[in-house]
Amino acid sequence: MNFLEERILKDGIVKEGNVLKVDSFLNHQMDINLFKQMGEEFKRRFADKNINKIMTIEASGIGIACVVASYFDVPVVFAKKSQSINIDGDVYVAEVESFTHKNKNQVIVSKRFLGPEDHVLIIDDFLANGCALQGLISIVAQAGGTVEGIGIAVEKGFQSGGRMIRNLGYQLESLAIVESMDAATGNVKFRDQSEVE
Amino acid sequence: MNFLEERILKDGIVKEGNVLKVDSFLNHQMDINLFKQMGEEFKRRFADKNINKIMTIEASGIGIACVVASYFDVPVVFAKKSQSINIDGDVYVAEVESFTHKNKNQVIVSKRFLGPEDHVLIIDDFLANGCALQGLISIVAQAGGTVEGIGIAVEKGFQSGGRMIRNLGYQLESLAIVESMDAATGNVKFRDQSEVE
Repeated sequence: MNFLEERILKDGIVKEGNVLKVDSFLNHQMDINLFKQMGEEFKRRFADKNINKIMTIEASGIGIACVVASYFDVPVVFAKKSQSINIDGDVYVAEVESFTHKNKNQVIVSKRFLGPEDHVLIIDDFLANGCALQGLISIVAQAGGTVEGIGIAVEKGFQSGGRMIRNLGYQLESLAIVESMDAATGNVKFRDQSEVE
Repeated sequence: MNFLEERILKDGIVKEGNVLKVDSFLNHQMDINLFKQMGEEFKRRFADKNINKIMTIEASGIGIACVVASYFDVPVVFAKKSQSINIDGDVYVAEVESFTHKNKNQVIVSKRFLGPEDHVLIIDDFLANGCALQGLISIVAQAGGTVEGIGIAVEKGFQSGGRMIRNLGYQLESLAIVESMDAATGNVKFRDQSEVE
């Protein structure tokens, strides 16, 4: 079991409806030392990739992305939800459905910050049905850039997002893949990734 | 002139209506090495304070807060805009008006992550009229915690937020205070802070 799986067992809370609360260390309160461990691990897993930019989506991906970025020594660009008056009209747009908030958002990235020269590592905290990730991949494609890899903290392995992204040929690395969880007992089962690597 | 003021002169863009775009390095694309310099500088300015938590507000404050937090070796808690189904009902709430998005948001922090034992450094990217900051201060007060200081990247010195917060006695450190800017010439004038310190 790796450091993130151990932390999930220690501090994660399983709720009814396959909800895994990791808000004490990942996406509300944020444990920066844990994020540093994640940065080291992603750096190891993507060591052979030539990455010049990290991309994420607001809000909870930003913290992880910024700490991870310091291990790659590259800037972060985060996709913004909905149009802001401070963003030029010249933007890439993707439509993203949110499971958590039960709504649809346009996410946008200024064309000034993504182009054909960019080799992008996408970072996010959660992967479930993969809608946010599809939007980010679409934006990199619109820019003519290259997705070199995708680094996720927690993947819900029983939802289809991860399988679909891997089927498309992307190197998707999730530090913890939850296979099942049980709100009654609080049990969380992780996918054994030792055979995958 | 300090590193952030220099960067604003180099890469900031002045738009009509007293809008200063710093989205190429601060709040859309994010220069992590710049954020590290900010972390070092805030650590120096708040060296005498006993800080055990950094607090910010989504979205663009999160990146700076996480990098700054690694210099203080403390966790970050970010206030969330609007109620999420992944947050317990047991939250502190403040109402915050957004100048950028021209709307009102409730911002919330789970009661599990803020309490009387917390000595908080508030970090954000921008300070103008101070509405977001008042909301964060109110949440720390609701929790019975202590605001040890406030660290801001860019303050619009010609708006009232900063003066009001300083009048209330808080140690507010803004790395760059814009006194005036001119969209026609692109000029930005900063407040001389050498006499203040």
